[in-house]
Amino acid sequence: MIELGANRYGKQSVRLVTVVRGPVHTVRDLTVDLSLEGAFEAAYTAGDNGAVVATDTMKNTVYALAPEHLTGAIEAFGLALAQHFVTAPAVARATVTLREHAWQPLDGPDGPAPDAFRRTGGMTRTAVVTADEVAVSAESGVEDLVVMKTARSAFSGFPRDRYTTLREVRDRIMATRVTATWRHGSPRDDWDKSHATLLRTLLATFADHDSESVQHSIWVMGQALLAADAGIAEVTMRLPNLHHWLVDLEPFGGANRGEIYVATPEPYGLIEATVRRSAGA
Amino acid sequence: MIELGANRYGKQSVRLVTVVRGPVHTVRDLTVDLSLEGAFEAAYTAGDNGAVVATDTMKNTVYALAPEHLTGAIEAFGLALAQHFVTAPAVARATVTLREHAWQPLDGPDGPAPDAFRRTGGMTRTAVVTADEVAVSAESGVEDLVVMKTARSAFSGFPRDRYTTLREVRDRIMATRVTATWRHGSPRDDWDKSHATLLRTLLATFADHDSESVQHSIWVMGQALLAADAGIAEVTMRLPNLHHWLVDLEPFGGANRGEIYVATPEPYGLIEATVRRSAGA
Amino acid sequence: MIELGANRYGKQSVRLVTVVRGPVHTVRDLTVDLSLEGAFEAAYTAGDNGAVVATDTMKNTVYALAPEHLTGAIEAFGLALAQHFVTAPAVARATVTLREHAWQPLDGPDGPAPDAFRRTGGMTRTAVVTADEVAVSAESGVEDLVVMKTARSAFSGFPRDRYTTLREVRDRIMATRVTATWRHGSPRDDWDKSHATLLRTLLATFADHDSESVQHSIWVMGQALLAADAGIAEVTMRLPNLHHWLVDLEPFGGANRGEIYVATPEPYGLIEATVRRSAGA
Amino acid sequence: MIELGANRYGKQSVRLVTVVRGPVHTVRDLTVDLSLEGAFEAAYTAGDNGAVVATDTMKNTVYALAPEHLTGAIEAFGLALAQHFVTAPAVARATVTLREHAWQPLDGPDGPAPDAFRRTGGMTRTAVVTADEVAVSAESGVEDLVVMKTARSAFSGFPRDRYTTLREVRDRIMATRVTATWRHGSPRDDWDKSHATLLRTLLATFADHDSESVQHSIWVMGQALLAADAGIAEVTMRLPNLHHWLVDLEPFGGANRGEIYVATPEPYGLIEATVRRSAGA
Repeated sequence: MIELGANRYGKQSVRLVTVVRGPVHTVRDLTVDLSLEGAFEAAYTAGDNGAVVATDTMKNTVYALAPEHLTGAIEAFGLALAQHFVTAPAVARATVTLREHAWQPLDGPDGPAPDAFRRTGGMTRTAVVTADEVAVSAESGVEDLVVMKTARSAFSGFPRDRYTTLREVRDRIMATRVTATWRHGSPRDDWDKSHATLLRTLLATFADHDSESVQHSIWVMGQALLAADAGIAEVTMRLPNLHHWLVDLEPFGGANRGEIYVATPEPYGLIEATVRRSAGA
Repeated sequence: MIELGANRYGKQSVRLVTVVRGPVHTVRDLTVDLSLEGAFEAAYTAGDNGAVVATDTMKNTVYALAPEHLTGAIEAFGLALAQHFVTAPAVARATVTLREHAWQPLDGPDGPAPDAFRRTGGMTRTAVVTADEVAVSAESGVEDLVVMKTARSAFSGFPRDRYTTLREVRDRIMATRVTATWRHGSPRDDWDKSHATLLRTLLATFADHDSESVQHSIWVMGQALLAADAGIAEVTMRLPNLHHWLVDLEPFGGANRGEIYVATPEPYGLIEATVRRSAGA
Repeated sequence: MIELGANRYGKQSVRLVTVVRGPVHTVRDLTVDLSLEGAFEAAYTAGDNGAVVATDTMKNTVYALAPEHLTGAIEAFGLALAQHFVTAPAVARATVTLREHAWQPLDGPDGPAPDAFRRTGGMTRTAVVTADEVAVSAESGVEDLVVMKTARSAFSGFPRDRYTTLREVRDRIMATRVTATWRHGSPRDDWDKSHATLLRTLLATFADHDSESVQHSIWVMGQALLAADAGIAEVTMRLPNLHHWLVDLEPFGGANRGEIYVATPEPYGLIEATVRRSAGA
Repeated sequence: MIELGANRYGKQSVRLVTVVRGPVHTVRDLTVDLSLEGAFEAAYTAGDNGAVVATDTMKNTVYALAPEHLTGAIEAFGLALAQHFVTAPAVARATVTLREHAWQPLDGPDGPAPDAFRRTGGMTRTAVVTADEVAVSAESGVEDLVVMKTARSAFSGFPRDRYTTLREVRDRIMATRVTATWRHGSPRDDWDKSHATLLRTLLATFADHDSESVQHSIWVMGQALLAADAGIAEVTMRLPNLHHWLVDLEPFGGANRGEIYVATPEPYGLIEATVRRSAGA
C-alpha cells in the first residue's frame, strides 16, 4: 500500500512594497513566503481541490491585508497573515516567512529627502511566524550579514590524519555571512526593540571575542544573545566560513606578513548550531 | 543555564573532476557537500578542537579517495566517503551529498570524439548518503529537471473567498523544475540501473497523466516510482509551479487560443510532498 | 556647454512562450531584448516624451506580433520586430536580441509525447537583428555551450617574467563556456539550416584539433565556420578559460597522472576575438 | 582570405583582500579584471605563445604589486597595474577594471572595533583604467546603487499606437539600480575626494528633481555631475527601470491610493546614455 507522507504547499517570493504618504514618506519592502499544512490529502490522492486554498489567493491576501496589518514590525504582519490562513477549514498550520529589504532616506540638499530612498544593503531582517489552531510561534533573525575579524581568530589543536595538510594558525582572517534566527518564548510587545538589541549584541560580540573556531564563535555569540534578551528561548546560527588564504609572495621576492589574501568562493566550510536555554533553567 | 542544541559542520561545494584515460576518455564531474555530527561539544563550549576533523581535511579526503572509490555510481562513492568519516572518534554520523554534472562525447568528424565533451545540461543527478556507527542509508534523485505539460493539466474546484480572483481552468500549461529524491530500503547492487528506471518512469508518467493540480501530479508520479522499483521506500518531490500566464491579446485585435504565454519567475507556487509505502505494506 | 552623447533605450527580458496546438504540440520559448536609437534628444533635455515609444508598448508588440511572425527561425521574428519598430517616426535603429530556450518532447509510454516537454539545457541559441531606415543586419550564435578537451590541448612557450609561476604544459584540460556569434552577409533563406551546419562544425572542430592556447582554438574554429558557410562574413567568440587544476595527491601517498582535477570558478581567463573574411577576399 | 579582427584577452575576477595592520586595521577588498590588446596575432594564427603574457602571470602581478601600490584609491592601483602591463613587448593597451567592496568597522563595546568589520553593502565603487604606449585614461563610477523616488516622478505624453496600453501617470514610483561612470579629463590628485563629491551630487540630484522619465533624470543628473567637478569630461549612466506596479485592491473591497505595489524583476526598461561637455565648450 502507498500513502501520503509529510506535505505542504504555498506561494513563494511574493514581493510587496508599500509607501506611507505623509509629509515624509515611509517605504517598506518585503518578500513573503507562505506555506500551509493540513488536511489536503484528497488533493493528492483524488485530485479533489475542494480544500485547497489557491496559491494565487494566498498572494492576493498578502496585498489585501497589508494596508491594515503592515503597520509595525514584520513579525506582527506575519502573525496577521498566519492567523488569517489558519482559519481556512483544512489548514492546520500556516507558516509565513518574511524578509525585509531596508531603504534609507537619501540626503537631499536640505537634509533627508522626504520622498527619495536608497536600498541600504548589507543585511536582511527576517522573521518566520507559525500559527496552528491553538498557538502561534515566532522567530526573528538576520541574513546576508557579512562580517570579518582580522585578528583574534585562531584554528589549532585539531586532529591530523593522513589527509590533513592544513597548518595550525593562531592568527587568521575569519569571515562569514551570518544567518541567525532566534525563537521567541512568546509574542513580543516590541519586536523592533528586541531586534535592535540582539543585532547590536551580535555584532559587538563578534567584534570583541577571541575565537578558537567558528564553532566557538557561535557559542560565544549565542550565549550573549540569550543573556541580552530574556524573551528568546534559543538561537540558531548558520555560518559559512568564507575562506581568505594568504598569498605566497615569496616567488615574487616579497614576504606576506598577514597583509595580502585571496578570497575564495568555494569550497567553503559551513557550521550550523543551536544554542538554547536548557530545560532545567 | 545555556546548552548546545543540534549542530553539524562540514565542507560545501567541493568540486571534483576526474578523467579516466583509456583509448576513450571518461569524464566525471561532481560537487560534493560533507557534513558531520557527533561529540563536538567541546569545540563550542571550550574552544577545544581536539575532536574536530578540519573541513580542509574533509576536502582533501574527497580527492584522495576518488582514484580508488569513484569508479561507479555517485552513491557508491558517497558511501565510501561517509564510512571513512564515521570512523573518526567523535563522528556519530556523516552525511555526503553529491551532485553529478553530466558530460557527453562530442561528435567528431569520425563519430564520437574520444577526448572532447559537452556538458549535457537539463538535469543534475543527486545522491545523499548517510553513515552512522551501525548503518548506512541512501537517497538518490534529480534536480533542475525542467518539464512542461501543454495539455491534460487543470486546476479547478478550489474554494473561493473574498481574496480569490483566479479563474478555474480545465486546460492550462503546467511547468515545473523537478527536485525529486527517493530513499532506498537498502544499498543497491546497481545504482545506475535503478536511477535510469526511475528517471524514465518519472518522465513518462509526467507526460502521460491527467493532472488536476501539482499535488495530484506528485501523487501519480510518486505511485509510479514506487511501483517501478521495489527497492525504494519513499519518494519526496519539491515542485515549484513555474507559472505561464495567457497574454490578453484583445487590446491588439487578436484572440489568444492558448497560444501566447508569458513565463514569470515570481511569485511561484511551491508544492512539497512525500509518497511512501505504508507501514503495513 | 553640455550635450547628449550616445544613447539608447528599450525593454529587456521579455519572456514569450508559444504553443502551436496541432495533433502534436510545438513549444517555443524566447527571451527578447529590444533597444531603440534615434531622435530622442528632447526626452532627455526637455522632458518631452512625444517621440518616446514606451517600453511597455515595446513589450506588448512582442506578444502582438508573435502569432503572425514567430513561425520560423528567431532571426525572422527578430527582423519583423526590428522592421516594425524602425517605422516609428523617431527611431533610426532598432536592435532585437533573441535567446531561444530549447524544449524537446518527453518520451511517453508510446513514443514521443505530443504535449509534454523537457527543457533541453546545454546551450542557448541566440540572434541579434538590427534594422535602420535603409538596411537590416543579423547575427546568429550560441551561448552557454560548455565544452571540454581532455587531450590535445597545450599551453607553452609563453614569456616568463618575475611574476610568472605557471608551468609549461603540453597536455592539459581545456574547458570553456562558448559564446559565439556570426554575422550574416545578408538575410538567409534558411536560418535553421545555417545554424545547424555552423553548430555542428563548431563542435566537431573543437573536438578534432590540437590546441596551443584558447587563442589558437578561436582561430581554428573561426576558420572552420567561415569555410562551412559562405553566407557568413565574420565570427566572434568569447571564451572564458574554465580552469581545471591538477590536485597534488603526493601528500596522500598517491600520484596524479592527469586524473584528478579541481574545477575553479574564479579567477578565470577570458579570450575574445573576431575572425573574418579580409576585405580583399 | 581570412584574417584576425579585434581581439583581447586577460584575467577576470581576481579577488584581492588586504589588511593594513596598525593599531587600527584597515581592510580593502577588490575584484580586478585585466585585459590586454596588442600584437598577439601569432598566438592565434600560428599557435605561437612567445608574446602572450600568461593570464596566470597577470593574476600574480595583482598580488605582487598590491603591497607597494594599493595604498590609496583604486584608480591609482589600476594605473600602476596598467602601466606595468603595457611595458610588455607585445602589449599596446592594458585595461584594468576594479570593483571595491566596502567594509566598515563594527561597533564594539568601547566604540569602533580596531579589527572587526562589516561588509557595507548598498553600492560598489568602480574604476576602469587604460594605458597605452603614450597615455593613460581613467573612468570612475558606481554600480549596484539601488534608489527609489516615491514622488516627483511622471511618465506621460508618449505616443500611442495600436499596441499601447500603458496609462499616462503624473505620479509613479521610479526605482533603478544605478550604474554610472565618469571619464576624467586627466589623472587626478585626489580620486577619493572627487568620487565623494560626485556620489553625493548624484544622490542629492536624484532626490531633488522632478522626473519626466528615466531619460530626463539621466540628463538632469549628468548635468549636475559635470557642474560639480570640472575634472570630468563625460558621464555615462545605465539605468534599468525597476518597475513597481500598483496592485488592484478593488476586488478585495479596498482602494489603492499609491500605497501598495508589487516589484517585478522582468521585463524591465533599460535606458543608457552619455552626457558630456560639447567639443566647443
